[in-house]
Amino acid sequence: MTPLPSAASPAAGLPRRVGVVGSGLIGASIGLALRRVGVEVLLRDTDPEQVKLAEAMGAGSVWQGERVEHAVVAVPPHAVAAELRAVQVAGIAATASDVASVKSRPIAEAVVAGVDLTAWCPAHPIAGRERGGAASAQADLFAERTWVLCPIPHTSAAALAATEALARACGALPVRATPARHDEAMAALSHLPQVVSSLLAAAAPDLRPGEVALAGQGFRDATRLAESDPTLWSSILEGNRGPVAAHARRLAAELGALADALDHASEASVTKVVTGMMERGRAGRAQLPRKAGTQAARPWGWVGVVLDDRPGQLAALLTAIGEWQVNLEDIGPFEHSLEAPAGVIELAVAPEVAGELVDRLIAAGWVAYHRS
Amino acid sequence: MTPLPSAASPAAGLPRRVGVVGSGLIGASIGLALRRVGVEVLLRDTDPEQVKLAEAMGAGSVWQGERVEHAVVAVPPHAVAAELRAVQVAGIAATASDVASVKSRPIAEAVVAGVDLTAWCPAHPIAGRERGGAASAQADLFAERTWVLCPIPHTSAAALAATEALARACGALPVRATPARHDEAMAALSHLPQVVSSLLAAAAPDLRPGEVALAGQGFRDATRLAESDPTLWSSILEGNRGPVAAHARRLAAELGALADALDHASEASVTKVVTGMMERGRAGRAQLPRKAGTQAARPWGWVGVVLDDRPGQLAALLTAIGEWQVNLEDIGPFEHSLEAPAGVIELAVAPEVAGELVDRLIAAGWVAYHRS
Repeated sequence: MTPLPSAASPAAGLPRRVGVVGSGLIGASIGLALRRVGVEVLLRDTDPEQVKLAEAMGAGSVWQGERVEHAVVAVPPHAVAAELRAVQVAGIAATASDVASVKSRPIAEAVVAGVDLTAWCPAHPIAGRERGGAASAQADLFAERTWVLCPIPHTSAAALAATEALARACGALPVRATPARHDEAMAALSHLPQVVSSLLAAAAPDLRPGEVALAGQGFRDATRLAESDPTLWSSILEGNRGPVAAHARRLAAELGALADALDHASEASVTKVVTGMMERGRAGRAQLPRKAGTQAARPWGWVGVVLDDRPGQLAALLTAIGEWQVNLEDIGPFEHSLEAPAGVIELAVAPEVAGELVDRLIAAGWVAYHRS
Repeated sequence: MTPLPSAASPAAGLPRRVGVVGSGLIGASIGLALRRVGVEVLLRDTDPEQVKLAEAMGAGSVWQGERVEHAVVAVPPHAVAAELRAVQVAGIAATASDVASVKSRPIAEAVVAGVDLTAWCPAHPIAGRERGGAASAQADLFAERTWVLCPIPHTSAAALAATEALARACGALPVRATPARHDEAMAALSHLPQVVSSLLAAAAPDLRPGEVALAGQGFRDATRLAESDPTLWSSILEGNRGPVAAHARRLAAELGALADALDHASEASVTKVVTGMMERGRAGRAQLPRKAGTQAARPWGWVGVVLDDRPGQLAALLTAIGEWQVNLEDIGPFEHSLEAPAGVIELAVAPEVAGELVDRLIAAGWVAYHRS
């Protein structure tokens, strides 16, 4: 995967009139984002209610066959080839892109459907919500999110440039990947998590009445994706059969190995297996960029300080730190409640100064610690 | 599982002096919650740093062997029996409860260790965070959360009443379950989700460099639990071997069946399999109580302020706010990168003062806004 350099100007090569096929969550959000930067947006959908809603929200106006510079085909994976072909047959868009969560199969289907591949840049903005439809659209849905461009050898420079400019105009960070690598990565990062989330949630009804009340926040987070749209996800999983099946088999084998250890191994062996699994999981989490789309953050030194819950406490702390010429790189949540007598705040500084800062704070009367 | 009727008074039967063994996240949070309602709290831990931190936060004072009415043994499952026995041998607590995420095995170990079972009510507050330790403690960690009481036939009425009163005093909702049903439900609702979260996250390092940037919010949510403490979770999974192994095998079989369908079945069959799986997942999610998991937090007014990335900027801002006698209730992440010229920090204040604060900040030369 290749991150792309920043464009000279966010508006470089941006189409002035864009048509959006499919006015659901993604299509309507693209409309809202493009309208905000002055692009004219025309919308269509098989469901006229979605277009009406998107229009009322300010995402654009009804597309009645006018010619546009670029068409965004924002439909489920299985429908991409047909909608692309329809736009091209009508001759109403110079170039086009799509937003589907799988890439190889729509490309194969486009070849079969006779799509002009030169005018199309396959693409995928990585953003979404469990709730679909125009009503859930947000102008900043793509802000700082990754927008994957998967041009194929046929893709023209014009189609690629228009798609990249559109992604930037929506506030996203365009990166480039081959369709095969995209699909492989999404199987691990999106499609398998969706499957697992649904299967975990599906176990809840097997419990006895009332026992689901024992579900904590962890279960809620782990099963949030289970609320996603079954029709859309049938299209996505069906469109990425091989990679999803391979990742599902890998996970099944790992679960089987863990179950074997739990059923038969010594206490020391179980501890080793579980600790190893969790350390690998932590290593994986540590690789996630701190914010979507940004590279892994520099590892800061974190310093925790106990504060009284009175006005001015935090200011006094930060004034002291400022006087010591220590630059604050990040600040953790101020965790406390109205009733609690005190809270802990965590401050990120350059790792090489964290130890000294803790010493100075303690010398100045604070309760402070260095979080490793 | 049996929900318990509300107590006549939240303070009915509440011990006036409680000892907490283990001053980590759960122990220190119980201390904070009990101090808030006027209970005297005494703390101990094998790590003196944790006690010092918990004490500085206001969770209680050092427990030097004084007699208490009730002891809460807030240690990992494998250590429960030994710590219970130690408290009983010392004769310093009339009754005791624990907080472990598994119940059957600590009960068996307590029998072997010679614990006086009449004085103990096995219990489990369902609340936690990925990060442990006293520094992460919160007085409202248990607010509106479920606190499972698993009394055994030996458990005295006094031990049960003290534990229930303590749960209510922490703001939790006590329910009753047998140890076996508790462990079975937790395997499905907590222990398997933890395993799956770690295994999903562990796949990230297998991707090629940079591809982890394709992870979206769904992956973050699905793998949040992967940051949990390996040592604690070894103890939990080892303590609930049978139910966790059974649920892991069930999930492995379902993943295998899905992979078979993806590899071999017709498009119509795959659609049917995926749609069925997702509908079952949605049905499971729909069973989750709306109430549990919602924070009882007061809705703050949020004020955003743009800051330069220079030492002292934040201190100057907070000094100004302190001088205006505005109490800061929470503080959002300082979202910026090294390369960005400026960052935005979000401050929570009482809703009625947010608008005025924005006006004053702007008058004082800051770029500020009121986030609705």
